[in-house]
Order: sequence, then structure tokens, then C-alpha cells
Amino acid sequence: MASSSLHTLSAKDAIELDKDLMSTGGFSLDQLMELAGVHATGGDGLVAARHLWHFGYKPTVYFPKKGKNEIFERLSTQLHNLGVPFTDDYETALKETDHVVDAIFGFSFTGAVRPPFDSVITALKSSNLTITAVDAPSSWDIETGPPSSGPGEGFMPTALVSLTAPKPLAKYFTGRHFLGGRFLPPNLEEKYGLQLREVYSGMDQIVELPSSKT
Amino acid sequence: MASSSLHTLSAKDAIELDKDLMSTGGFSLDQLMELAGVHATGGDGLVAARHLWHFGYKPTVYFPKKGKNEIFERLSTQLHNLGVPFTDDYETALKETDHVVDAIFGFSFTGAVRPPFDSVITALKSSNLTITAVDAPSSWDIETGPPSSGPGEGFMPTALVSLTAPKPLAKYFTGRHFLGGRFLPPNLEEKYGLQLREVYSGMDQIVELPSSKT
Repeated sequence: MASSSLHTLSAKDAIELDKDLMSTGGFSLDQLMELAGVHATGGDGLVAARHLWHFGYKPTVYFPKKGKNEIFERLSTQLHNLGVPFTDDYETALKETDHVVDAIFGFSFTGAVRPPFDSVITALKSSNLTITAVDAPSSWDIETGPPSSGPGEGFMPTALVSLTAPKPLAKYFTGRHFLGGRFLPPNLEEKYGLQLREVYSGMDQIVELPSSKT
Repeated sequence: MASSSLHTLSAKDAIELDKDLMSTGGFSLDQLMELAGVHATGGDGLVAARHLWHFGYKPTVYFPKKGKNEIFERLSTQLHNLGVPFTDDYETALKETDHVVDAIFGFSFTGAVRPPFDSVITALKSSNLTITAVDAPSSWDIETGPPSSGPGEGFMPTALVSLTAPKPLAKYFTGRHFLGGRFLPPNLEEKYGLQLREVYSGMDQIVELPSSKT
């Protein structure tokens, strides 16, 4: 699949697709969170931390602005039961880790980066750590990609994992690009002009897509 | 892990663990169904059919006694959207397939096999098809295993997939035995005397356990 033919999902359509999945699609929010972290803004980071713990990693969670939905409380409880630490001190956490999962903002992010996230993104950018962004490098515009000013200027994570479908920003991402969330029904693929099923093979739940720099 | 040291979960404890996961564990029923089909009796069969469709298989669902929980309706809707057929004619379905996932009864099964499942199990037994049982070969007693009379007498599926933890019946199962559902927190592993985390490696979500016949 050449980068120029990458089928992407706009921010507006991503929100619409989310609604479709939970109405005619018959999916619950909990299911979607497990299948693909569709409803982002932190939740998919919590799901990732849980799996990473079971895989033998030692994640620390930075989660300063908790969502109001009770699903965030339950996902946090699941992590507390594993002894996964939560911290507000991201600077120390960055010094003590070798990998960051950036799931701060999701596909519904828009506008300017407010405190404390401006400082967090600045710290991520200068950390030289391996960073995997979920759906979008935080601070990037979902449609137009990397910001030309502000804390996100020059922020290019090591890898991007697009959930369900790449968002338009993926065209500007030059690191490794993966697609996850293999569950979209064909009627919704068609409605949103996506042709993603054929990129998966066998029982893969994730696939690497060609990078935009190739 | 020698078969004699297999840590198993009794039917009573499996029900208790389910309650713990959904109370102190912070898991929702939807999450558990996606992670491991914990709340069985058909639901995990529906989740399996969805994934199998995405993997390129052509599943047909036999689901004669629908559960009352709305989760069964939503899981069915998800399959309808994929065009997965539901049938009441299991005899024809068995003639047209090469593999059966037996998720009729789960770990809460007890007592006698009532119609129409007595005939279904007889048909499965005589089909010579490859059969993968989920948590328990249907009609087997969760504690004591294979029945010595009735339709389940002599019913030995090809493979068994134990979800979260093997049930005592696994000791009597002589086919290939797999464990899935890698999400149990250590506090609940300890409470129920299970030591299962170490059997997984890397990012595996499923692992083959030694068969009872070896």
C-alpha cells in the first residue's frame, strides 16, 4: 500500500464512526476500549499499561486529567490491583524509563496544548527516549499533522500506532507506522471509504504499514 | 508444568472469581467477554465467531437458547453486521464445516443435558470433525469430567481452550490443551491458588499446556 493511497479517517469521521460502532454496530464502550482503544484520551494508555504489565514490563502511568466516565475509574482499579504506580512527576518517570507510550491526546484533540501538557510534550521531545504514539503524536493536528510552532514543533515519536484506521496526520509521520484494531465491519469500512481489512493477514491483530518516508 | 501439578479452578470458585473480577477487580462484563469470554454459555462462542470472520474464516452460528443479558443481543448484532449466518439446523451446518467451536456450556454447567443439546452433542460426537471446546467439552461435569452415560459419554473434542484457568475436568482431557485469558491480577491468582502467569511468555495471549495423556 503506497503512502499516497493510504485510506485515512478524518477527525470528524472518527467521531462519527465511534458513534456508529456504539449504535448500529452493537459495540459497547468497554468492548471498543479492549479491541482498539477507540475512545481515546488516556483510556487506551491504561489498557496498554495493563497488557504491558502482563507481558513483564514495569509501566508507570502519568494520568493527570482523569476523564469523567466511570470506565477510567475501572481501568485505573485494574492497574492498582497489579501494583502499577501512578505518578504526577513525569520528569522523574522519564528519567527512569526506556520507552514511552504517548496516549495523552486522541483523535478528538483540537486547538492549543494547555498546561501541564505543553511542558510534558517539551519533556518528551527532549528526552531522546523511544516513544510510541497512539493514534496521534500528542499536540499534532489530526488533519494537518505536525504543528509549526508551540511545544509540539519538531515532535516526531519513534512509532505511531493507528487504531481502527490511520488519521490524516499519518501522512506526515516519518517513523514506523502500525495499524491495530482489526474488528471494523465491512458496512462501516464502506461508509467511511476505508479499505483496511486486506492489510492484515492470518491471525494478526496488528500490522506495520509503509512509512511515509519510504 | 506436569499434569499432576496443574492448578485448576473449581466451578464454585470460577463463579466467585467472576464476581471478584467484576467488583474489586474493576472489570466490566464486556471487558471480560473480550479478554477471555469469562462469562460463558454462548457468549465466548459469539466473540470467537467475530474474530474468526476477521481472520478469513466463514463461521456459522448455532445459538438456539439466547441469554437474557443484552450483551448477547449486542454480540449478535456485531455478527449480523458481518453477514455471519445464524442457523437452527445444526445437522446441515455440521455437514458443511470442517471445524467446530463447542461453546455451548460453560463453567457454570451442571446437571443433565436437556434437549436440544443432547442431540447436538450426539451429532458432534459422531461427526468426526475437528472440535475445539471452550472451557469444557459440553456435557462434561466441571469437576469430574467425562460423563459415564448419556449423550456426552465418549465425547472427547480435539482441543480444549481453558479460559483464565483450567477447570478440574481438564485433568481428564486427552486432546491438546490451551490456556487463554492472560489478564488475571496477582491478588486473585493468590486468592484462588492459581499460578498461571509464568506459563505465558513474551506477548503471547495463549499458551499450549501439556496434555493429560503425556
